[in-house]
Amino acid sequence: MTLDDLPTPCLVLDLGILRQNLAHMAAAVARHPGVVLRPHLKTAKCVEVARLAAPDGGPVTVSTLAEAEAFWAAGYHDQIYAVGITPQKLDRVAALPGVNIITDDVAVARAIAAHPGPLSALIEVDVGEHRGGVGPDDDALLAIAAALGPRLAGVITHAGHSYAGRSDADMAATAAIEHAGITRAATRLRDAGHQVGIVSLGSSPTALHARTLAGVTEVRAGVYMFGDLFQAQIGTHADADIALTVLTSVVGRRPGVLLLDAGAIALSKDRSTAAPGLRDDGFGLVWDLDGKPSLGRVVIERAYQEHGVAVGAPDLPIGTRLRVAPNHTCLTAAAHEGYAVVDGGREVIGTWARINGW
Amino acid sequence: MTLDDLPTPCLVLDLGILRQNLAHMAAAVARHPGVVLRPHLKTAKCVEVARLAAPDGGPVTVSTLAEAEAFWAAGYHDQIYAVGITPQKLDRVAALPGVNIITDDVAVARAIAAHPGPLSALIEVDVGEHRGGVGPDDDALLAIAAALGPRLAGVITHAGHSYAGRSDADMAATAAIEHAGITRAATRLRDAGHQVGIVSLGSSPTALHARTLAGVTEVRAGVYMFGDLFQAQIGTHADADIALTVLTSVVGRRPGVLLLDAGAIALSKDRSTAAPGLRDDGFGLVWDLDGKPSLGRVVIERAYQEHGVAVGAPDLPIGTRLRVAPNHTCLTAAAHEGYAVVDGGREVIGTWARINGW
Repeated sequence: MTLDDLPTPCLVLDLGILRQNLAHMAAAVARHPGVVLRPHLKTAKCVEVARLAAPDGGPVTVSTLAEAEAFWAAGYHDQIYAVGITPQKLDRVAALPGVNIITDDVAVARAIAAHPGPLSALIEVDVGEHRGGVGPDDDALLAIAAALGPRLAGVITHAGHSYAGRSDADMAATAAIEHAGITRAATRLRDAGHQVGIVSLGSSPTALHARTLAGVTEVRAGVYMFGDLFQAQIGTHADADIALTVLTSVVGRRPGVLLLDAGAIALSKDRSTAAPGLRDDGFGLVWDLDGKPSLGRVVIERAYQEHGVAVGAPDLPIGTRLRVAPNHTCLTAAAHEGYAVVDGGREVIGTWARINGW
Repeated sequence: MTLDDLPTPCLVLDLGILRQNLAHMAAAVARHPGVVLRPHLKTAKCVEVARLAAPDGGPVTVSTLAEAEAFWAAGYHDQIYAVGITPQKLDRVAALPGVNIITDDVAVARAIAAHPGPLSALIEVDVGEHRGGVGPDDDALLAIAAALGPRLAGVITHAGHSYAGRSDADMAATAAIEHAGITRAATRLRDAGHQVGIVSLGSSPTALHARTLAGVTEVRAGVYMFGDLFQAQIGTHADADIALTVLTSVVGRRPGVLLLDAGAIALSKDRSTAAPGLRDDGFGLVWDLDGKPSLGRVVIERAYQEHGVAVGAPDLPIGTRLRVAPNHTCLTAAAHEGYAVVDGGREVIGTWARINGW
């Protein structure tokens, strides 16, 4: 079977590029002795990808309980479920020994401590993104640790604001803030008499650009595996390192415009590249069937539910197959049930399922 | 089981509101004698919803071949697959007698005519949206009809530009343009000696606001079933008529801000309400567990993969359950595998599966 035989739209994952991206990140983390990579599987949501990114059942990060359960069943028994837990979700987690949870709330920490199951939790620390977490110097840090008691497994942060960086220097600066914040939190907890086994940080940009990770035990990153147009623009990788594309067919044509069967569901409505200082790639860039930009700059300017409107396109017959590079690979992948896997050519060498839902 | 027992995030569909929305549209179409409603199932993608929206196996519209196959298996043998067909997809359609296809291309029309299967096609007409279709006065209209020969089943258009309207008068004006364009196309084809059985138009706004549908055989609409914040703002229905919400849990809190476990996947990144002239509802509005706006105006301002950041919120404990009204119901529903069905209360009276994928 080749890319010419697949129903469109569908996801195409290039194994060679994936392997290269994994090696690139592994090398970046290996610069820091004693620090392990805990890949985030939120992008791939795929057991076959996990086996490449985290061989030997190595530590992983997940974003949903559905992922936690599926990867646990696949032999991944050292996980962090990296979204703030609720008391109502503790029973599901307790059935998965080795799945660490996170919290930034004293009441939840008490519920974790009181639960009869084998729970283990990290305290979420905010180093400036202001999404979740307590500040490294916040009193709540010590209160949560006290409430968790022996169930405290460590501290965790995510410098998601690294995505606002536009240069390697920006990324390195955010990485330094991330590093300082999480090690400060660990130090305060240790000074108060707590064991802090795990000191976890990461985002794809900071993982690549961190100058020191002294005192950190592990790095988390996910989007680096597949890459996307946004990550390429902020310097995480090159355009040619985008491993995930959406195979699509031309379903309409008029001068300069192609209508594609990859629309808002197949691509997502993510507009990451519309951020200040970036080149706006619309809802994605259209490449040829080999995943190369041979058509020139063809941008998906509008995305309806099942139609993408690509402008700047040469005239091509209806039925022509093309591949769309995504703005934000995590969200583009989310609407699809699996991956058609290729390795640099058009031959489909495998079909890998995704773990969607919650 | 009640809404307190469900894993979050998940979709909640209110059956009472759904039935009311279906009755409202049925009444709007019934104003036009001889015109039938061909509901578009692209929003619901659900057999149980189809049985309510199109009883007795009545005509339906679909947006993917996966929908066509599933609804055909469920007894819906009069369908229009309303995305321009490609030659490569004809074999799949030919296995589903009664599934009409659409095209706006002479080469595709020839492929349809030459296919050995029982195919039947409508010509897609552009009445101003400029997505797909040939103009009513375009020479290509007659050329496509000639190429289709006896496989010509009719003409079809969609005035999607009605969504740019901001008043009933705007909608009525677009509906008049839609009506004039599709009947003009039908007249030209008949004058050229073709049989034109189906004259199909529609969008939720134009279906509700059309003043005349003389010469039209059927109206298509889909989003009216569930409604959303965008449709409420453009007058398709009231806020209280939104039948679909996302059940979510509070996973983080700080003054004025709640972090929810409904993020960019569970809600979609659709920003329809950011359009000019509308009130920007961010990535959705947060209502209470009963689906009422009792919290005041709480807006999801940022959406990360699995986190929604809601601002303007009262302080609520972690684990509190809320419901998010979507910007664009079709896209919000797309990431979910099914619906938890309620009927005005918190009791879950059913779980209905969705037909996702392609």
